[in-house]
Amino acid sequence: MNILEMCDAGGATVPVEATAEQAIQTMLDRHVGAVAVLDDNQRIAGIFTERDVLRRLSVSGREPGQTPIREVMTTPVEMATLDTTPGQALGTMVERHYRHLPIVDDDGRLLGMLSIRNVLQARIDLLTRQLDEARSARSSR
Amino acid sequence: MNILEMCDAGGATVPVEATAEQAIQTMLDRHVGAVAVLDDNQRIAGIFTERDVLRRLSVSGREPGQTPIREVMTTPVEMATLDTTPGQALGTMVERHYRHLPIVDDDGRLLGMLSIRNVLQARIDLLTRQLDEARSARSSR
Repeated sequence: MNILEMCDAGGATVPVEATAEQAIQTMLDRHVGAVAVLDDNQRIAGIFTERDVLRRLSVSGREPGQTPIREVMTTPVEMATLDTTPGQALGTMVERHYRHLPIVDDDGRLLGMLSIRNVLQARIDLLTRQLDEARSARSSR
Repeated sequence: MNILEMCDAGGATVPVEATAEQAIQTMLDRHVGAVAVLDDNQRIAGIFTERDVLRRLSVSGREPGQTPIREVMTTPVEMATLDTTPGQALGTMVERHYRHLPIVDDDGRLLGMLSIRNVLQARIDLLTRQLDEARSARSSR
């Protein structure tokens, strides 16, 4: 299983011209904790997460509807590709305290948004299958 | 392993008299995504999460420093006790789309805050141990 198969379908995005309020509304509508911010070439310009809302908006006194997303997004963005293994992706997220990692193609275009929960759930599924196999191999002897 | 052992040490709390801004600052300082709101008897009056910040504050135009936490917290709170199994806790969180579940004693006082990530990580640890045992039992025959 590659990391793209672990993602929820599609990735939530907003254009770099969006306001912070539009990004927050997208997170609420899509039930996700992060959106990718795309430039005019559909490449990732930044990422904006629930945590960014707390850190950069909620206690700043800034009005989300008047705040350009580019001023409160995180950039540069740590990203994964289809060559990134689940273990490498999890390592990056744990080490950097990220809950989300965009997966991009060779041109830097978004393929999906990986969450740490996706990776942990996939690991549980894999371990469960391996355990079933190990136990059935044992009982079949 | 009971669910309390899965929690990060302590649970972040604010008094019910706090403002939303104080609750947000506590989440930022403690690096957690939820705080328990405690009444004067140290019992849980509500819970306030990152998601509540997005839903009830960020797009509301309300000023966090002027907003009593009791007006934006979630209540009544779904809670777990020491008798709740990890599977039951995970089931509740998945079904209700909660990422956090306070663990309380018989008097409703907070023992710890369980996160869905805690539960998934503990499940991975358990499965990994079981898989090691199953494989070593097989190879020792």
